[in-house]
Amino acid sequence: MKQLVFLLLLICTTGLVQGRIRHYKWEVKYEYKSPDCTKKLSITINGRSPGPTIIAQQGDTIIVELTNSLGTENLAVHWHGIRQIGTPWSDGTEGITQCPILPGDTFTYRFVVDRPGTYMYHAHYGMQKLAGLYGSIRVSLPDGVSEPFFYDHDRSLILNDWYHKSTYEMAAGLSSIPFVWVGEPQSLLIQGRGWFNCSLLTSPSLEPGVCNATNPECSPYFLTVIPGKTYRLRLTSITSLSALSFQIEGHNMTVVETDGHYVKPFTVKNLFIYSGETYSVLVKADQDPTRNYWMETSVVSRKPTTPPGLAYLNYYPNHPHRQPPTSPPANPIWNDTEPRMNQSLAIKAREDYIHPPPITSDRVIVLLNTQNRVNGRVRWSVNNVSLTLPKTPYLIALKEARGDLHNFFDQNPPPERYNFAAYDIFSNATNHNATTSDAIYRLKFNTTVDIILQNANTMTVNNSETHPWHLHGHDFWVLGYGKGKFNINTDPARYNLVDPIMKNTVPVHPYGWTALRFVADNPGTWAFHCHIDSHFYMGMGVVFEEGIEMVGKLPSQIMGCGITKGFRRL
Amino acid sequence: MKQLVFLLLLICTTGLVQGRIRHYKWEVKYEYKSPDCTKKLSITINGRSPGPTIIAQQGDTIIVELTNSLGTENLAVHWHGIRQIGTPWSDGTEGITQCPILPGDTFTYRFVVDRPGTYMYHAHYGMQKLAGLYGSIRVSLPDGVSEPFFYDHDRSLILNDWYHKSTYEMAAGLSSIPFVWVGEPQSLLIQGRGWFNCSLLTSPSLEPGVCNATNPECSPYFLTVIPGKTYRLRLTSITSLSALSFQIEGHNMTVVETDGHYVKPFTVKNLFIYSGETYSVLVKADQDPTRNYWMETSVVSRKPTTPPGLAYLNYYPNHPHRQPPTSPPANPIWNDTEPRMNQSLAIKAREDYIHPPPITSDRVIVLLNTQNRVNGRVRWSVNNVSLTLPKTPYLIALKEARGDLHNFFDQNPPPERYNFAAYDIFSNATNHNATTSDAIYRLKFNTTVDIILQNANTMTVNNSETHPWHLHGHDFWVLGYGKGKFNINTDPARYNLVDPIMKNTVPVHPYGWTALRFVADNPGTWAFHCHIDSHFYMGMGVVFEEGIEMVGKLPSQIMGCGITKGFRRL
Repeated sequence: MKQLVFLLLLICTTGLVQGRIRHYKWEVKYEYKSPDCTKKLSITINGRSPGPTIIAQQGDTIIVELTNSLGTENLAVHWHGIRQIGTPWSDGTEGITQCPILPGDTFTYRFVVDRPGTYMYHAHYGMQKLAGLYGSIRVSLPDGVSEPFFYDHDRSLILNDWYHKSTYEMAAGLSSIPFVWVGEPQSLLIQGRGWFNCSLLTSPSLEPGVCNATNPECSPYFLTVIPGKTYRLRLTSITSLSALSFQIEGHNMTVVETDGHYVKPFTVKNLFIYSGETYSVLVKADQDPTRNYWMETSVVSRKPTTPPGLAYLNYYPNHPHRQPPTSPPANPIWNDTEPRMNQSLAIKAREDYIHPPPITSDRVIVLLNTQNRVNGRVRWSVNNVSLTLPKTPYLIALKEARGDLHNFFDQNPPPERYNFAAYDIFSNATNHNATTSDAIYRLKFNTTVDIILQNANTMTVNNSETHPWHLHGHDFWVLGYGKGKFNINTDPARYNLVDPIMKNTVPVHPYGWTALRFVADNPGTWAFHCHIDSHFYMGMGVVFEEGIEMVGKLPSQIMGCGITKGFRRL
Repeated sequence: MKQLVFLLLLICTTGLVQGRIRHYKWEVKYEYKSPDCTKKLSITINGRSPGPTIIAQQGDTIIVELTNSLGTENLAVHWHGIRQIGTPWSDGTEGITQCPILPGDTFTYRFVVDRPGTYMYHAHYGMQKLAGLYGSIRVSLPDGVSEPFFYDHDRSLILNDWYHKSTYEMAAGLSSIPFVWVGEPQSLLIQGRGWFNCSLLTSPSLEPGVCNATNPECSPYFLTVIPGKTYRLRLTSITSLSALSFQIEGHNMTVVETDGHYVKPFTVKNLFIYSGETYSVLVKADQDPTRNYWMETSVVSRKPTTPPGLAYLNYYPNHPHRQPPTSPPANPIWNDTEPRMNQSLAIKAREDYIHPPPITSDRVIVLLNTQNRVNGRVRWSVNNVSLTLPKTPYLIALKEARGDLHNFFDQNPPPERYNFAAYDIFSNATNHNATTSDAIYRLKFNTTVDIILQNANTMTVNNSETHPWHLHGHDFWVLGYGKGKFNINTDPARYNLVDPIMKNTVPVHPYGWTALRFVADNPGTWAFHCHIDSHFYMGMGVVFEEGIEMVGKLPSQIMGCGITKGFRRL
């Protein structure tokens, strides 16, 4: 009864009285899975990895009762792309919006999906996402409203990279001295299925049958299409490390949506997609219908040692397991940044669906991403600050601390920019003055904020990487991309203020910059970070706060850590 | 300053004003270790497994500031054999006396070691102990007081069994349908070192160098002795599964202490030792001093597939790595229960150190241990009840719940005994009416309680196992052991009320019973359970409460789960 009242209140306060309630009960536990033919203890939801797809309609309320059956490990799940308006405590970011969910506990995430589009969910605690806790969210338009493009069928494909080591092993390496890098993934997965070449296992072990190429769990995923029909393919990348290219042999793809926003259509042979991004592409089944075709993902931006991920586009009525008669198509050259930059520049808002950005901003924050050694460990830093999370999540500390906030996290704001003149982004990162800190950026409510993400050379000579940055709680306008060092005096003149796309995740290209704008209009505390798990783990992120005084009463279920080890207020 | 005041208070209230404060700062994290030549991600304390030995004197206050750096996994550490008088919240049993310690948190265990003797510590959360978090506690007599036996030197040896799989893999097997048993351990460790035969690795894997027989981490442990001297060897078993025999080639051992109590001395060639037990034995270095000798542990009670664990007794000045010229001595026959029962019967209190037990008891609880299938999973049950732990630890619920205790755990007391007449302990466990429950036994304060542990056949034909049961918060008198079914009318007449040993851990032999008596004089909530990790995980335990109203104010640091997700009371 109480629950019902709460829901009704929720629906009323968001004004979405037409929304339905979609109620899920999920049990999260460890189970052996062989997504790439190799047995690995994976985190599953109701026995599955990827987890169930949430299919909802704009305005619906999603309720996920999540039971942690991981034994001794905690849990938190983020609903990536959902802005959590009015429900910042449901964002699922451990250390920022909630304490972790303890083993044995059931945590109820409740939120409204207020916009149509393609989203995802995944663990947001340490590097837990790598163990397999992820899935798709697909939100359709209200009844009677149509998409501005035509398709016959709607399908979701989630792309991932996959490691054979446990999250614990990978995290232990990253936090040890000497530092041990996680390395390249063993395989690429399409909709949870990949293929690892068992003959690469050359060292001895105790356990027989770990790799089994004939395991049906790793038979290639197939997507069946009816000749002549047009498919909306919702592509999501949830990779831990890899930037991907995706293509379908012999078929063009027309990009029409990204991160819940309509794109001015453009056609590609292959789509570059970064971790945390979603795209809808239209694909017409207009090729020779007597055969199947390859769907293929491959690694770009890092020198690939991981073989491409393969699946079948199955033309009905061919057998879905029939291998295409051709070899998989060639993939883009991994270190050619040009076509990737070009794709980024091609993504603009669709006519009639343009949300014009504010013409000016109130605050400009320039964030330099560098790799440094801090206390003997390799860390990523933002303006020389490597993020650590406090014991009491920011949302709780800011909302409820009666004492001095200094007791909870560093109250000195992190730097607004770096020393443009002094720092050479093309040289090896050698500055040794980076520090760890849990300081955050506090934004004035309803102000417009520009963020310029500046990429640089890593600690390796002639190396700069691609970082997909994801903002929680907001979409931002993508005002521009550039090569080299951002010039705060001249580059803003090149911003696209006419038809910039809105997104929640955006790549920063090697040695390049990306400029974003958003309005700080969502009360809460919000992570903004590189979506590469190991990079965020190594400190590559910042946190924003805005309108904390407008946040409602925090639910007790988000508590239990830091200052909130005590009795519930009655 | 606050801390100091607290300590002084603690010392004053326990009356042990002479005690020193021994302050430890421990960081617990995952690191690769190769205790048996095979690389495994292990839980270490300050980089070590076994962790540091706590060496203290009777009356000292131990303070361990324990920082959880396990990333996403919680933690709790139990101080096994320490009664925690006045500090029941420091017992370290997750779900019973505290909420688990979250990653990033520092928990301060504070307790007084009020009696001399040999104790241990280990993780007490899920099956976490298997990952390597364990160590020794050695408490010496006050200045001016002597042991009733002579020795020149005092040494600790901790015995363990070791698995190559992670705790997560083992726990996943035990809680999956179909049930997957953990199997026999890969090796036996003496003081954290063992040996695994790398050539047994016959299946392929990706990672080279996992097994390396020349790794110095797994070179045999050696204990150096000076010819002619007498050594007190403090032996501790912390095994996850195995009952052990321990022997030193060519040397007799005189048993003088167990679990902190002096034993009427008796001499053995090999000592049987069960998980959770400690023994002090006296060994004289009186053999040919020109060579070294084998120290050896082997598995008994279960058909051993694990090779014996070996170490060297190094006679100074021989080279400590010089292998003994002989083969390791033969070990006891694994399934011969007789000598093990005889050893149990031989252990009596030493003259002049006898604590006479109360002649009668106020309550007799008979606990039948059976294996059953509950909801499709194999479980261990006690009088048909398989223990599960509640979300709010008993200590917190009982002490602080203002509402109805029914909301916290099952208020129907578990059964005092089983149906003696109807249950055939020699038949396959086929009763399907076992249930899981978090009900506990509530004991009247200061009453005398008898516990009879009754063993039975497992679900396997002609199989009954050895279960070492450990009681928290108390020592008990061991009144007797018997074969077959305990007869409540006749067997009590055979109890040893003259010189029974006091212990905290005691074996229940196959198809046998063990009778204990203790006084419920320690306010708190106390686990009593089989010390085999997988058995306790599968429900083989009970919980006692006594004098809860006399427990002082609970520290906020034990909170954070169940009803205690809220703000600290000011």
